[in-house]
Amino acid sequence: MTAHETSKRVTVAEIARAAGVSVPTVSRVLNGRADVAPETRERVEDLLRQHGYRRRGTSRGGSARLVDLVFNDLDSPWAVEIIRGAESVAHAAGIGVVISAVHRHEPAARQWLDNVRARSSDGVVLVTSELDPSIQAELDRLRVPTVIVDASGGSPLNAPTIGATNWAGGLSATQHLLDLGHTRIGVIAGPPHLMCSRARIDGHRAAMESRGLALDPALTYVGDFYHESGFEGGKALLSGPRRPTAIFASSDQMALGVYEAVRQSDLRIPDDVSIVGFDDLPGTPWSSPPLTTVRQPLVEMGMLAVRMILRLLSGEELESPRVELATELVIRASTAPPPA
Amino acid sequence: MTAHETSKRVTVAEIARAAGVSVPTVSRVLNGRADVAPETRERVEDLLRQHGYRRRGTSRGGSARLVDLVFNDLDSPWAVEIIRGAESVAHAAGIGVVISAVHRHEPAARQWLDNVRARSSDGVVLVTSELDPSIQAELDRLRVPTVIVDASGGSPLNAPTIGATNWAGGLSATQHLLDLGHTRIGVIAGPPHLMCSRARIDGHRAAMESRGLALDPALTYVGDFYHESGFEGGKALLSGPRRPTAIFASSDQMALGVYEAVRQSDLRIPDDVSIVGFDDLPGTPWSSPPLTTVRQPLVEMGMLAVRMILRLLSGEELESPRVELATELVIRASTAPPPA
Repeated sequence: MTAHETSKRVTVAEIARAAGVSVPTVSRVLNGRADVAPETRERVEDLLRQHGYRRRGTSRGGSARLVDLVFNDLDSPWAVEIIRGAESVAHAAGIGVVISAVHRHEPAARQWLDNVRARSSDGVVLVTSELDPSIQAELDRLRVPTVIVDASGGSPLNAPTIGATNWAGGLSATQHLLDLGHTRIGVIAGPPHLMCSRARIDGHRAAMESRGLALDPALTYVGDFYHESGFEGGKALLSGPRRPTAIFASSDQMALGVYEAVRQSDLRIPDDVSIVGFDDLPGTPWSSPPLTTVRQPLVEMGMLAVRMILRLLSGEELESPRVELATELVIRASTAPPPA
Repeated sequence: MTAHETSKRVTVAEIARAAGVSVPTVSRVLNGRADVAPETRERVEDLLRQHGYRRRGTSRGGSARLVDLVFNDLDSPWAVEIIRGAESVAHAAGIGVVISAVHRHEPAARQWLDNVRARSSDGVVLVTSELDPSIQAELDRLRVPTVIVDASGGSPLNAPTIGATNWAGGLSATQHLLDLGHTRIGVIAGPPHLMCSRARIDGHRAAMESRGLALDPALTYVGDFYHESGFEGGKALLSGPRRPTAIFASSDQMALGVYEAVRQSDLRIPDDVSIVGFDDLPGTPWSSPPLTTVRQPLVEMGMLAVRMILRLLSGEELESPRVELATELVIRASTAPPPA
């Protein structure tokens, strides 16, 4: 779509005429200001929605464009991967990437929304699936193109979403262990309320069942994706009556927790037990032995998110509200055939 | 300093009058435009320098303020730590943090400068000491308050600089090993051209010499801070005629490389060899056994950088052109007394 066609989209003036209010009133609604009568706000918002009004990406004169990249917290080791991907595409397009963390505290999120409004961001990439509902509503009201990078899956937000093929990733992890000859395979799941966690374990189950093997509840441990739960899960599985010869830990952090459990049990990886993780975090190749894991395409997810914002800004329709990028099994040194 | 006092700083109009040119001409110089005669540009730039002209942080109306946070590359695992610190201070001040990587390619750096100019950033935090000199000159010409986070030490740039106490960190690492009873201590240095690398090793030497021990060239290996060189250094030190009972690897990545060398030598940490790293990267606590290391205050360095920008914007003078924040020894499970 060309700039000329884009300019045919509904304008604030047209919305004002249709609503029977002034242009400044529509602007006040768009800017989330409080000095608008509730019934007027509602009428204007209905019209904005009906006409699919979207803020133009030219509020600061065209060239100084910004995209907000928003995390719940910046303490995740994979945040920098998504930042790296987003920055590379934005940089090339002359767009600045503004990083925020909402810190799961509503005041911080509200402060962030005020900031987004003040700097007239052209787009928002949310790396979260758990934004406070009231913030979601306000963000919706700002009418800035929004894309969600939802590594956890099953986002309830009303915006295009980018994820990874978690089910296929879980499948490939366990197929690799089966191909090496393992049949007694332990699994450490993530939190059941996250869809990505369920999808990985369902992929694992599909791999087992397609070889005629059932999931053994005694070889299943439910963790929370963090290191400590992997350590506890590893200790539980390794001290059980039928020790598994391999463990699929559905996050790298949990896999490294299993490493520590193996070390404290005076066992060896992969001689006594093989381990597969999930994520391929930046530091994962430096584990000892280097961890075999399922790579999430986090850099690519960040790149795609900004590309989708650019397409939305130019008025294009997206093919699908959800895109999943392929995971990839990365074989390193933590997996080997089972001990004889 | 109050807003009123700040407004007394030299204005573009005053510079124009002093240079005998029009205000738009001064603006063209400030914006790095090409359509200004070289001698005029030089005269205006001299005056801007003499009067300490600094861009006002209000170019977009006061509230929509931005700080650029610039990395050479975003593939360093500690980038996110600095981002986290910078974001927390900026967020609270209602300022957006724009992330860029210049990718060590000059065209990308030039594109970034064009972007900084277009978005009228109020300040720049450079996380680098190796920016291309021509880019430095252009950045200087933009007259945006700039602060350098220079984890590597010895920055040649003409701006306030934040570092860490690398010498004291190296000292504390080796004092810890000496206190445990080690005397045969191997050391893996970083690249000698980086001042931070020299400072860490000098701290190590000071600890040794203060106990009457000399550095043994046979127990010294020069790496490059990356994992592979730690692995090679570890193999070299562990296979030598007088195996050290402890190794100080002057980066976490190199320390984890030593882990792999120890594993492949069928030795155990810390039973056979103690290891201390340097950095305390986000994933370091998940090493197995958890690595004892010297923490760099990266989050705090990012926080301080934005605080310094805010002070420069309000017209304050800084106490010192260089500030070093304290490192801290974090004792985990990779160090123990030497084997009997």
